[in-house]
Parts: sequence; structure tokens; C-alpha cells
Amino acid sequence: METTIPTVPTPDDAALWHEGVLYLADQRLLPDRAEFLRLTDAGAVADSIRAMVVRGAPAIGVAAAYGVALAGRDAYAAAGGGWKAAIESDLARLAASRPTAVNLFWAIDRMRRLIARLDERDPFPALVDEALAIHAEDRAANRVIGDLGAALIEARTDIITHCNAGAIATGGYGTALGVIRSAYAAGKVGRVFADETRPWMQGARLTAWELMHDGIPVTLQADGAAASLMAGRSVGWVIVGSDRIAANGDVANKIGTYGLAILAKHHGIKFMVAAPTSTIDLEVASGREIPIEERDPDELLSCGERRLAPAGCVARNPVFDVTPAELVDAIVTERGVVLRPTKEKIRALMGGWGL
Amino acid sequence: METTIPTVPTPDDAALWHEGVLYLADQRLLPDRAEFLRLTDAGAVADSIRAMVVRGAPAIGVAAAYGVALAGRDAYAAAGGGWKAAIESDLARLAASRPTAVNLFWAIDRMRRLIARLDERDPFPALVDEALAIHAEDRAANRVIGDLGAALIEARTDIITHCNAGAIATGGYGTALGVIRSAYAAGKVGRVFADETRPWMQGARLTAWELMHDGIPVTLQADGAAASLMAGRSVGWVIVGSDRIAANGDVANKIGTYGLAILAKHHGIKFMVAAPTSTIDLEVASGREIPIEERDPDELLSCGERRLAPAGCVARNPVFDVTPAELVDAIVTERGVVLRPTKEKIRALMGGWGL
Repeated sequence: METTIPTVPTPDDAALWHEGVLYLADQRLLPDRAEFLRLTDAGAVADSIRAMVVRGAPAIGVAAAYGVALAGRDAYAAAGGGWKAAIESDLARLAASRPTAVNLFWAIDRMRRLIARLDERDPFPALVDEALAIHAEDRAANRVIGDLGAALIEARTDIITHCNAGAIATGGYGTALGVIRSAYAAGKVGRVFADETRPWMQGARLTAWELMHDGIPVTLQADGAAASLMAGRSVGWVIVGSDRIAANGDVANKIGTYGLAILAKHHGIKFMVAAPTSTIDLEVASGREIPIEERDPDELLSCGERRLAPAGCVARNPVFDVTPAELVDAIVTERGVVLRPTKEKIRALMGGWGL
Repeated sequence: METTIPTVPTPDDAALWHEGVLYLADQRLLPDRAEFLRLTDAGAVADSIRAMVVRGAPAIGVAAAYGVALAGRDAYAAAGGGWKAAIESDLARLAASRPTAVNLFWAIDRMRRLIARLDERDPFPALVDEALAIHAEDRAANRVIGDLGAALIEARTDIITHCNAGAIATGGYGTALGVIRSAYAAGKVGRVFADETRPWMQGARLTAWELMHDGIPVTLQADGAAASLMAGRSVGWVIVGSDRIAANGDVANKIGTYGLAILAKHHGIKFMVAAPTSTIDLEVASGREIPIEERDPDELLSCGERRLAPAGCVARNPVFDVTPAELVDAIVTERGVVLRPTKEKIRALMGGWGL
């Protein structure tokens, strides 16, 4: 979005398009090292999504859109007027990079709709414009989500968040952290408690980094420490993002979210999901149909160079879970807020009738 | 307990007394390295408890008892017939090593009662005998706890455990893992799911090691993955140990236990606490009075050599939480089982009237 590339990524400049190159902050290295990767073809973008250079459902969608633009450029260079056939392998590669975040498929589908309208000429300028639009619209959506979510918070309160649904997980500003940023600006946030979020430590590495960057008071805690914090009664809201929301309002998000929602209910604490409508998948009737990614057990067995578990130890590493709609107090999107989500309310939101 | 010292500690030989030396498996290094530390004075024992060379409430009690014996020997060497005054500083040092596990204070009190009965002669042989008795009684109690706990499990089922309440956390055999060992021997265990247990990773490092050593099927999972596992309905019981049980049946245990108990209740899964009566503290009326240790935030901010969170990040690191008695289906002790604990039932158990 910039005409010059900063040397160091910041939360608000973690994905940049400049002169035909996609610059992505390497989120595997944060916060120790803030470095951009330069990506110049769709295969590199797909690999970066799979390896979690970029993660966070909306950010994956944005990166994939730029990946489609790069794929179009290369397909036209290789096949000229036959670029629409030549682009398919890259589109498939991008779509296969991760399974749970629907924003990936949403972004590819939107680029496909543009592709269908294009002719045999060089598609690159149009594809870049569409990727830039997806990126800018996501940023703008998050500003709206932030304001709508902040408005739900009645009084100054402490907030728990899980994983990272921040600027770097989106096109900018963030979903859950967007709400927190807007609520903080409105004087409604006492302190944010960030679950460290095993196994990938998005809370420790990314959410703490983003909030400290913005001067918002944040305390890191082990995932298992959320319950006893809630018992202390200073927490008013749990606010998280989402990787996919089913037609009935069930919410897939980072592993641990479902448990947090149960704990919130037990303690009378409200539970908010902040996500753009690109995260809502009307094709899946309920959360049971959402594919849950299992990643390499080694993410649990080791920490950096250090081996934690005995050699040969079996581990399960589902990296998302599903929170039933009954446990959700509010889904906050750029089109409006859905309180106590149901199939009918989600359909109304997506039909554009408002609520 | 042995006349020769094995070169490598095993789950059943993690604390050994031999010729005036306490050998403790260094639990900070497991499972990567299985090594004994040789402890020859009470100060070293206190330091080992504080640094978590030895952890687990009953094991801390056993180690402290041996520490008192070493203190008695040194006090007699220094002060002869005046050893009872000279031993006090070491007793205070042992008592100050960690705050939450009441077994520490229980063991020191029991040694004190012996000290009160002794005269001015060398107390070392009597103190060693008492420490050996505490150790042997804890082992024997765990066998009984194992059988009583296993009897509560009606059918073959999967079990979730948290932290490590195993052989190395006790005098031997284990409390929660004792129940699991006995239940497994009775054909009642499908698979054990061990929460990795942040921040100290007792589940990954110690519970997985113990269960794999015994050939009991174990799968490691992130703490945040317990809820979605429970939603799958294969889990019949959550079984944990305890660091202190209040007079009303509230249970202090490793951080994350309280959340697990709420999740178990939500899913209709039973929740068992396995602990010797030395863990029951009638002096505290409820869990609110139990001191909860906060350890160095650096346990969250780093993993081994690797820094996880940004420099200057604030973290809270309470390492225990309190599960209210209402969430507990059974407290299993060597004196009997307390179902749905209340103050009256706990008093009956401790009064020795049975139930």
C-alpha cells in the first residue's frame, strides 16, 4: 500500500505491495527479529502461508490475493493469451496451503470472479488492483468492527484475548485487537490479558508485541491461567477473532477458544467474536463441517532447539476448535453486530438486510 | 530406600536415601537427561525444592523430611546437646522454600513432633527413620489411592490428566498417575491425554515420560486442546493431584486445573482429585485462604534459550489455582473416598470415622 518500503515491519505495515513484490513480515521471527520476506511468485506466497510466515485468517486472504496477482503475471508470461489455463496450478497451490481459514478461499474466489471477467490480455494490472482493494477493504472493515465492538463494552473493564487477531493477522488494525484498540481509545479498557496461546505462542510473540507497540497495557498469561483470572471478576469480556464462522454462528478459531468460551459463560463474562464477513462461510451449516487443521506434533514436542517431550511421544496438535453459537454473545462484523447468533440472524446479516 | 543407587533415576526411583545422602532426580532436566543430584545438607534440600529439582506436593514433603534429618545431624555436630536450638534455622529455611503445597509443612511438623520427643543425644538415626517412614507411608498410601480411585472408574475410558502427579511427584507410584496405573492394570484405561501444562511443561516432560516408561498409552496435548477433546466424548474422567485441600474440599492444584474442572462439568465428565490425607489442611477453611505461589514471569517469557515475548513484557505467573469443591466428584485418599466433598465429609474422613 506504500510507495516506499520501511526497513522494519510494524504492526500496521506487516504486508506491503511495492513494484510487483509482496513484502511480508516474517511472523515466525517476531518479536525477536522484525524482517520482511520478499515474495515474487505465487508458490512462495503459498509456502509462506503454509509455514506461517503470515497467519491470521484475513491476512492469509490478503496474501493469497496478492499471490493470485503474481500467478497471473507468471501465467501470462508463460502462456500469453492462454493464461487462464496456465494460472490454475498456482490457484490450486494457494488453496491447498491451509485448510481452516475460509478467508483464503474467499479471496481466491473473489480473484476468480475477476479472472472470469478478464480477456486474453495481460491480467496483472487488474489482478493487482483487486488484491489492493481486498487489502484496503479489510483494513477499512476492521475500523468499523473496532467501533462497533467497542460500543458493546459498557464500562471500563479488563479484557482477555487469545491468539493474535491483530493488525498483522489482518489487512491492518485487527479484528479482536481492532475492537481493543477502539475500546482503549474510548477509555474503556483497564488491561488486556493475552493468553500466550500454545503451541505457536501468538499471544506472547505477536499480541504482546502489537499492544506494547501501541502503549495499551497488556499482561501475558499461560492459557491455563485464564480461569483463575476470571474468578477474580475484573474481566468483563473475552474478545477473539475467527478463522471461519458457520451459517449457524458456530465459530472456528485458535485452539483453546472453545474452552475460553465455556469459562466465560461459567463466570458470567461476555464473549465477543470480531471478524469481517469474509470469515462467514454460508456453505457450512454448522461448526461440525469446518475442517480443523492438525499441524506437526513437533510444535508441541519441542520449543526452538529444546526438546520438551520424550523421544517417540505421541501428540495431538489440532490448531483450531469450534465454539458453538450458544456460547457467543456477539459476532461483530463490518456489516453489523449479531447478538446471540443464530442461523436466521447470520442469514439476515449476509443478505444485507441489516438487523 | 535402596542399598545401592542406580546410575539413572527412573519414575520409581527418583528420591533415594543412601548412607546419609539424599539422591534426587533432577526434574528440571527430565526427560532429556536423567541425573541424580547428591544432597548432603538441609540448605541444599531447601534450594532444590525452591528450584524445582523436586516438585509435586508429596515429593516435596518427603524431601523436606530428609532435609530435617540432615539438619539434625549438622545441628548436633555443631551444637551437641543444644541441637534443638541449632536446628531451627534449617527448619525455617525448609519451610520457606515453597508456599502452596501443604505437604511441606505437614512433613516438617511431623518431624518437629518427633524432635519434641527426643533428648539431647544425636538425633540423626531417629530423624532418618522418621523420614524413611514418611517416604514409605506415602508410597503405600498411593497404592491404596490407586486402587480406590480405579474402583470409581466404571468402564474402559479415556482420561485427561494435568501436570504431573506421578511417581516422581510423590514418594512413589503417584496419586493421579497411581490411579491411572491401577486403572490401566485393571483394563479400564483406553488412552491418557496429558496436558503439557504450561509454563513448566510437567505434562510433556514428566507425565509423558512416566507413562511411556510404564507402557501406558499417552497422547500429549496443549492445555488449550482439552476442551475440544472433551467435546468428542471419549473422555470419562479428568484425574489430577493436589497441592492443598481446604477443610471444605476446595482443591489447590497446578494452574489450569480449575479451568479443566469447569470444562469437565460442562461436558458431563467426572473430575477426580487423588491425594494423600497429608495434603488436606484443616487449618484453612476454604480455598480462598490457600496461598497461591507466583513464580518468576520469565518462566512465561522464555523457553530455554529462546525469548518468546517482547523485552519488558508484563506477565502474571500464578502456578496454582483453586477448584471449588462443587466441581469435584471425588477426592480419593488412602483413608477412603470422599464423593462430592463438603466440610462435613472431609471432617469425617480426617476424624477417622470413615464414610
